[in-house]
Amino acid sequence: MTEMNRRKVLLLALSAPLGSYAAAGEQAQEPQHKMPDTGSVHWTGDEQIAMLMYPGMTVMDLMGPHCFWGALMGAKVFLVAKSLDPVTSDTGVTITPTATFETCPRDLTVLFTPGGTDGTLAAAVDPETRAFMADRGARAKYVTSVCSGSLILGAAGLLKGYKATSHWSVRHVLAGFGAIPTDARVVRDRNRITGAGVTAGLDFGLSMVGELRGRTYAECCQLMSEYDPDPPFHAGSMKTAPPEVKTPMVEMLAGFVKKSEVLASKKG
Amino acid sequence: MTEMNRRKVLLLALSAPLGSYAAAGEQAQEPQHKMPDTGSVHWTGDEQIAMLMYPGMTVMDLMGPHCFWGALMGAKVFLVAKSLDPVTSDTGVTITPTATFETCPRDLTVLFTPGGTDGTLAAAVDPETRAFMADRGARAKYVTSVCSGSLILGAAGLLKGYKATSHWSVRHVLAGFGAIPTDARVVRDRNRITGAGVTAGLDFGLSMVGELRGRTYAECCQLMSEYDPDPPFHAGSMKTAPPEVKTPMVEMLAGFVKKSEVLASKKG
Repeated sequence: MTEMNRRKVLLLALSAPLGSYAAAGEQAQEPQHKMPDTGSVHWTGDEQIAMLMYPGMTVMDLMGPHCFWGALMGAKVFLVAKSLDPVTSDTGVTITPTATFETCPRDLTVLFTPGGTDGTLAAAVDPETRAFMADRGARAKYVTSVCSGSLILGAAGLLKGYKATSHWSVRHVLAGFGAIPTDARVVRDRNRITGAGVTAGLDFGLSMVGELRGRTYAECCQLMSEYDPDPPFHAGSMKTAPPEVKTPMVEMLAGFVKKSEVLASKKG
Repeated sequence: MTEMNRRKVLLLALSAPLGSYAAAGEQAQEPQHKMPDTGSVHWTGDEQIAMLMYPGMTVMDLMGPHCFWGALMGAKVFLVAKSLDPVTSDTGVTITPTATFETCPRDLTVLFTPGGTDGTLAAAVDPETRAFMADRGARAKYVTSVCSGSLILGAAGLLKGYKATSHWSVRHVLAGFGAIPTDARVVRDRNRITGAGVTAGLDFGLSMVGELRGRTYAECCQLMSEYDPDPPFHAGSMKTAPPEVKTPMVEMLAGFVKKSEVLASKKG
């Protein structure tokens, strides 16, 4: 592929959040727009990105990063599960995998897992899932998660000695896996990069684009996805939520937190 | 269902963004947590929400609102398409519909459509899709969209005389459908509520939860999904993006904008 063709294809990929390339899985198609000369931006790449899927996953944990990673020109993004059977999320959204544990590339640029609650705990103790994560995680350039997905990384032995974060309800649990629980939206320690709960996947995913392709590429993705958040309420953090919001949510998650603590104590 | 049971089931639904209910489509299941007495919060409801899906849709446009709507206890959320065949997004994410144009309830609380680029224009001129949107939109309590999904509303005749927004690139196009293009993250005019580009679906979706269930319920959803955004860059708006980001993105979308203008001129 010539440099000009690469740039043209990039354009197409960059516009993915708005739908400019067709439904071809991880392959970009013929571009429809001509690219201006953009100087030193790293428009092209060949990253291999694996995003784990499992029953009961939280779909926003997966789609937050995917919103930006789907625009990485030249990259291949695999939605990986045990088989190619469609996988249903915690809220009943059913997504078709594009690769299995067997067909997923062995040497990955990014290994990623979303979180959830009971489905996440089931995936964390599943021998096949744990073996897949440990194997790919041993060689991946970046080992990453969003929300309680870090419990899966921890259970696979991938967080020992690393700072990491999780959903606010189970962040402390990571210590049981030998990790150093750290309170931030996105936490990086060497090649381990973890995001906080659910919607932190957007901040995490965009940070990863900056890491992989540089600031200007990431900013282009941000403008294309109009990521200029303006929440109508301000209860998104345990630091800002009022008591009448915190109390029921803490009580609601108490059972999940206890089960997570049991899981981590068995691995500690 | 007794009031106590309703509250228990609610708990389960509210925790959906973290995965506490199983993969049962629009039906919540037996709860695992006991609810504290929460006073005057409207925990339960019976909304019927239809979210349109079509080939080439932008999946974040759909999943942003769904992230919060999936936690509406008692509500039914339908992923509606022409048939039950899986639908593939602009970035190759394939999702299984849960209802068709025929099986979708006739009287909806919320009618919603995501955006995209070429797939959106194809949906906007598709006679069956347009007829479905016009029919349900005529009776729905709220008629809504995110991103260029407002082009579909416009093409179905649902925005005449209403203020509305869209992705920044095609907001002006809405005038061709008789709408009043309005620059805001979420625009409300009577029962038409439209969100700006892609990730505006989170702000739009959470606003809708506040509209349907009140502020405390929405704040609970916000804390559960840890929606406390902290973008690593600040190029998410045409007001803040630097020229080296705006210029290539405007050029990249020029073809889509032109096609959108042609579509709107035919309907104007």
